[in-house]
Amino acid sequence: MSLALSLGRRGQGSTWPNPAVGCVIVQAGRIVGRGWTAPGGRPHAEVQALTRAGAAARGATAYVTLEPCAHHGQTPPCADALIAAGIARVVVAATDPDPRVSGRGLDRLRAAGIALNAGVMADEARRDLAGFLSRVTRGRPEVTLKLATSFDGRIATASGQSQWITGPEARRAVHAMRAAHDAVMVGAGTVRADDPLLTVRGMGAARQPVRVAVSRRLELPLMSKLALSARDVPLWLIHGPDADAQAIAAWQAVGAHLIECPLSGGAPDMAAAMQALGAAGLTRVFCEGGGALAASLLQADVVDRLAGFTAGLALGADGRAGIGPLGLDALDAAPRFTLEAVRDIGGDALHLWRRRAVP
Amino acid sequence: MSLALSLGRRGQGSTWPNPAVGCVIVQAGRIVGRGWTAPGGRPHAEVQALTRAGAAARGATAYVTLEPCAHHGQTPPCADALIAAGIARVVVAATDPDPRVSGRGLDRLRAAGIALNAGVMADEARRDLAGFLSRVTRGRPEVTLKLATSFDGRIATASGQSQWITGPEARRAVHAMRAAHDAVMVGAGTVRADDPLLTVRGMGAARQPVRVAVSRRLELPLMSKLALSARDVPLWLIHGPDADAQAIAAWQAVGAHLIECPLSGGAPDMAAAMQALGAAGLTRVFCEGGGALAASLLQADVVDRLAGFTAGLALGADGRAGIGPLGLDALDAAPRFTLEAVRDIGGDALHLWRRRAVP
Repeated sequence: MSLALSLGRRGQGSTWPNPAVGCVIVQAGRIVGRGWTAPGGRPHAEVQALTRAGAAARGATAYVTLEPCAHHGQTPPCADALIAAGIARVVVAATDPDPRVSGRGLDRLRAAGIALNAGVMADEARRDLAGFLSRVTRGRPEVTLKLATSFDGRIATASGQSQWITGPEARRAVHAMRAAHDAVMVGAGTVRADDPLLTVRGMGAARQPVRVAVSRRLELPLMSKLALSARDVPLWLIHGPDADAQAIAAWQAVGAHLIECPLSGGAPDMAAAMQALGAAGLTRVFCEGGGALAASLLQADVVDRLAGFTAGLALGADGRAGIGPLGLDALDAAPRFTLEAVRDIGGDALHLWRRRAVP
Repeated sequence: MSLALSLGRRGQGSTWPNPAVGCVIVQAGRIVGRGWTAPGGRPHAEVQALTRAGAAARGATAYVTLEPCAHHGQTPPCADALIAAGIARVVVAATDPDPRVSGRGLDRLRAAGIALNAGVMADEARRDLAGFLSRVTRGRPEVTLKLATSFDGRIATASGQSQWITGPEARRAVHAMRAAHDAVMVGAGTVRADDPLLTVRGMGAARQPVRVAVSRRLELPLMSKLALSARDVPLWLIHGPDADAQAIAAWQAVGAHLIECPLSGGAPDMAAAMQALGAAGLTRVFCEGGGALAASLLQADVVDRLAGFTAGLALGADGRAGIGPLGLDALDAAPRFTLEAVRDIGGDALHLWRRRAVP
């Protein structure tokens, strides 16, 4: 199952709106088939592994990270494929919260006389599949907020210099993180200050993440790298109801997909924005700041994970803050996260956190 | 030598103005004596190890982390003690930069016919003894700046709440760090806001570190915990030339030791302050903020090490900054540090850094 999980993770970022599933088929102690959800979400992991296993699948055990589907979508049900291939036993990590699947995939396998183990390494599978599970159960993607700051939490000097605070290995790690997400998101200030392209580079990425920018009035430069590349890599813009009609038309003309959201505290409401992104199929969103967007996301309490890169330099309180004002008075009111891992990434400290369940 | 180094580290914080040295005596593959500099700096490590070894020292090998002394100070020279005990071979890590010792200890041993190896694990020894070496070569102690902040680099909410941002294990680690330093230093703002005692608690500390507070005009509360405990644990106050004579008299009356320093940018000059602390014998100073003092230390370029504790909560840009304004425009001008270690300390991320040599 551990291998199946690692195969499943290979698909992260390129299978949305489908989950990134992994599957391993074992015949008499030998691996005869491996598969993971293909880019775009099809074929599913089970079908890929069965194809590789061929006749060796008969009487074999299949390890699948998510309950096989039982409904006819754009592909026939994987449960049926497992039955048809003569699989004798299926080991499942997480069950599927999708009401079209939940329990039915297992029922169908059981009815066909296949031995079942469910819940094996379920916690790890639920972590890997958290984006898909979040979209199904909460209607929004899993959101990771990344912050690359100085030792004292600054993302730029007072004059705006920000390139580079972290080193080349940390920046490469960010590209790998982008590649494992369905979308990369930034605020309008970052677009204006850094003119980022927000693509995955140097990773042989199968599919580029959607670029999402947030700008209440769509006051973004039409000569920006994002605009000029919008026909090649998807660009979605989240704006408020008061965006200028001309700006909307201009951005549609360059190929951007526009999403209107209600306002909250003078900025597009991030809870509503995430529901819209979930409805559009996104399961994993990687937010790269800046400070105002980070504060909006935290205030809307839609940040599930934090990824902090801390560099060994001090910029001082006159530098730009990585997270804008939150208006907190009491420490108790601050959103809290649990540390998952710390690592040295080429001389920068990487620390990964997960939102602590509110008691 | 690795064992001798770890023994030497036991003395850190309690041997100043002497170095914290470790010594192991090995006879025919068996450890017959171990020693480290005693609290207060005497007896020296070699004498302690020789005493334990007794007659077994004859013909043995002594591993010492720092070149044995050759001068008559408050104790007879350790080189002579090693000779008198009949040691056959001495392995030394670092040589002593003290002009009264440098090379002479080794010369004396060599002249007595003792076999010598010097420079074994010298880099690690120089790191452990950096405070002593800094005092001898630069006239000032090694300075570690500690910062315990939120994920976004804040040490308190806008209203000043700061207890507790990090967890109990991180706070315990801070007490262990205090215990390994000769002095703990804070700014006036921290004294007024937190009323800290700054002692080492729960560690069975042999000797409390000196408490050092910086206040240009000595505008600190005389009913503070620092003032009320000044007769029990040393309290040194660094002030400017314009401190009020009455305040000076009042603080002397409660038992504080006063150190006057010239000003730099409206605050006591930290380069001069550190020279004064070095002259007073301190080798390792642990600075715990706040933001204004941290900025003064960084601007004076006297910070050798950074110890960052990052907690999993966000406080936002309206929270209090861990490092005050530095007035940097270009990233190139920012002081840079090299990552030495990252660790999970009870759910907080600890990252340790060392000042990068300026090219």
